[in-house]
Amino acid sequence: MERLVEKADKAEKGIEALTAELAQVLKAAPTASNKEIEDLRAENEKLKQRLSKLETGGAAGEELSNESETKASADEDEVNPWDVQAASNKGIDYDKLIVKFGSSKIDEALLARFEKVTGHKPHHLLRRGIFFSHRDMNIILNDFEAGKKFFLYTGRGPSSEAMHLGHLIPFMFTKWLQDVFDVPLVIQLTDDEKFFFKDLKMEDCQRLALENTKDIIALGFDVNKTFIFPDLTFMGQCPQFYQNVVRIQKCVTYNQVKGIFGFDDSCPIGKIAFPAIQAAPSFSSSFPFIFGDNKTVPCLIPCAIDQDPYFRMTRDVAHRLGGLKPALLHCSFFPALQGAQTKMSASDANSSIFLTDTMKEIKNKINKYAFSGGQATVEEHKEKGGDTDVDISYQYLTFFLEDDARLAKIKQDYTSGELLSGFLKKELIDILQPMVAAHQKARVLVTDENVQQFFTPRKLNF
Amino acid sequence: MERLVEKADKAEKGIEALTAELAQVLKAAPTASNKEIEDLRAENEKLKQRLSKLETGGAAGEELSNESETKASADEDEVNPWDVQAASNKGIDYDKLIVKFGSSKIDEALLARFEKVTGHKPHHLLRRGIFFSHRDMNIILNDFEAGKKFFLYTGRGPSSEAMHLGHLIPFMFTKWLQDVFDVPLVIQLTDDEKFFFKDLKMEDCQRLALENTKDIIALGFDVNKTFIFPDLTFMGQCPQFYQNVVRIQKCVTYNQVKGIFGFDDSCPIGKIAFPAIQAAPSFSSSFPFIFGDNKTVPCLIPCAIDQDPYFRMTRDVAHRLGGLKPALLHCSFFPALQGAQTKMSASDANSSIFLTDTMKEIKNKINKYAFSGGQATVEEHKEKGGDTDVDISYQYLTFFLEDDARLAKIKQDYTSGELLSGFLKKELIDILQPMVAAHQKARVLVTDENVQQFFTPRKLNF
Repeated sequence: MERLVEKADKAEKGIEALTAELAQVLKAAPTASNKEIEDLRAENEKLKQRLSKLETGGAAGEELSNESETKASADEDEVNPWDVQAASNKGIDYDKLIVKFGSSKIDEALLARFEKVTGHKPHHLLRRGIFFSHRDMNIILNDFEAGKKFFLYTGRGPSSEAMHLGHLIPFMFTKWLQDVFDVPLVIQLTDDEKFFFKDLKMEDCQRLALENTKDIIALGFDVNKTFIFPDLTFMGQCPQFYQNVVRIQKCVTYNQVKGIFGFDDSCPIGKIAFPAIQAAPSFSSSFPFIFGDNKTVPCLIPCAIDQDPYFRMTRDVAHRLGGLKPALLHCSFFPALQGAQTKMSASDANSSIFLTDTMKEIKNKINKYAFSGGQATVEEHKEKGGDTDVDISYQYLTFFLEDDARLAKIKQDYTSGELLSGFLKKELIDILQPMVAAHQKARVLVTDENVQQFFTPRKLNF
Repeated sequence: MERLVEKADKAEKGIEALTAELAQVLKAAPTASNKEIEDLRAENEKLKQRLSKLETGGAAGEELSNESETKASADEDEVNPWDVQAASNKGIDYDKLIVKFGSSKIDEALLARFEKVTGHKPHHLLRRGIFFSHRDMNIILNDFEAGKKFFLYTGRGPSSEAMHLGHLIPFMFTKWLQDVFDVPLVIQLTDDEKFFFKDLKMEDCQRLALENTKDIIALGFDVNKTFIFPDLTFMGQCPQFYQNVVRIQKCVTYNQVKGIFGFDDSCPIGKIAFPAIQAAPSFSSSFPFIFGDNKTVPCLIPCAIDQDPYFRMTRDVAHRLGGLKPALLHCSFFPALQGAQTKMSASDANSSIFLTDTMKEIKNKINKYAFSGGQATVEEHKEKGGDTDVDISYQYLTFFLEDDARLAKIKQDYTSGELLSGFLKKELIDILQPMVAAHQKARVLVTDENVQQFFTPRKLNF
């Protein structure tokens, strides 16, 4: 009798367990394969789109080439040479980026060392963490202290007629570095890259390189210490430069550039091979007319952080060229007028203040578009205060207002609610208008002959 | 008690039913969705194939569409720039290759037209079908007849110190074409390609290019009509050449070069981008110092058939550069001493007669290695006769013995059994020894200064 009760209980429990298992199976199994089906359907859809694009006579899928493995998840910042998108309205999380890219933070110790070695107070872009990350800057400082000079390398992709304020930052900073260290500087204009990546004629890429060079020269670079070169011209002037490109192209596989830059199989071969061309100027052996036979002059590259993938690749192959790993100083992005979620872009006129803008345009753009960190009403603002973390006028002031004390006072008074957004806008306008006016005046004076001087491969004084 | 038994029975049945249902679900449910997944996978595969075919063919891919997959099956000849392997011991089936590559056979009509337009009897390499295939040679002849001149382009990948007899063929023929048509000639030495594809130092690739150039010059090319250029030097001397390389690299996708050349994702990016560098000399705009502003000087490329993939690609993109499709004359392979199944290779010393071989080496190699088409015994040979289709000495005579009547007589007497293999070997030795000796004598006279003359970008007389 007891055994029977036991048996029945056991059976009932068995039924319960099986029922539960069945429910689980019915629920889970189709869900699992639904996921796979969904993925396949999505892939199917994509393939059909590409196919229809190709069959209707489009180019071989260029638009699709940048989308692939590099896609960021919704809560992650997207940072690569062709796309910068922050997940939050506070902008990119740069500390996270340092971890992700494996670079080092520019900290107080490095700044102190900088000041000790150079005898110069660090530039406000360094002091304020706008240049926030580096690779091997300590080696550059140690070498410099020991009397070993380096060279500077920076560049620009000439994709638009007019440069905007954001484009200026690395060049202004590089000019300051050149003055402080008294070292030669090479500036690459990647007109070949723009030809590969944009729907532009080659002649237009070359013309844009020339126009942009005038803006760069107008910043006051010393022609005796500076060599500027558009790839489409220079590649045909210096066999050693091409030879270094070839050396790098032998060391880097398609799998690697696919991983680093997110290229896919429908990419033109020019895009795939291009990273070697941006890498080559990191080596002094690419410029025998400047460095003679010295293949191991250290190189320091100031650039925006989105260019770091090129130089991670470069550092990886340096030893195979008998060269040194280039050192880097990374700057954060210059935010769009509309807010720090994206960087200023030349392709969106309202997001940018161009070096060709009139004084009136500068004023209007700032007043109309510069995202405010203020409160909804004056009363609320006076009570709660403004937020400098998101206020674009304040952000721009950190780039262009050199006076630390004044900037601190503005921050304090804005945060306390004493100052309104309008005051910050006016302060910014008052700084930018004369700055841009001075630039425009200097640029008018740059002749085509000046440009050719900078373009000519020659000895530099250093 | 009975109720308990009933309860237990019911429970046991419940368990059975549920177990069965569960088994059913576990078996059936995934099968149902597996079916859908399989269908989707199959559709995706089909779409991918269509896509790759389209991308391989390019937008205007009439040339490439003939040959989407170059991989040979077991009974098919393998012919690509890096591998030539015949399925039969009669060598490559060249008629099949014409169909596969989509080129045209050089027939009697074309030869007659050649003789009429030039006033010259076609070269014996043409008459004997060693140059057997062409693209657009009729256009070249029509243009020439109408007074429009073209230029010749051929090349060499400098991967070995010493060139062998097989390397001579396209150059000997090209020299004859230059004499007949009186046109300028450009010769590319792809030292960059050899650097990418071989385990060689860059300096060695450059040195080999220089050594090979001496052999080429020794053939008697006119310095006033001939420009020779190693890529690693010339790329750094002529921006317009690089610019054409870049234009081509924008038109050709990774999918395309993968389809044409069989590259895979582990290839260095230099290999992947290289085909554009071999394509660029097909356009007169790559040589402004020779052709001035004339971007549409027709180009005729004499080359071995394994180089055709490069020029199919070139012809596909020509219109996007504002250039003309290059015309081609394809020659068959110079067989190895061991037989026609593979071509003579510099990396196997015993398969090749080098231009540096001594008279004794030439004699010994032919006597020892040249594959015989004769029978096993003298008696059997006299009875059955020799086979000129496989006899290497006879094959070589078709390349080097100019006298048609004598060659026909040899063939007749060998086939009838009257002549033994030994006679053919002796005949060949008697031709090759003085030919190679004369070459060696001429080569000694070529100085480094001569080489530099040919290497200098300059105007040519034509």
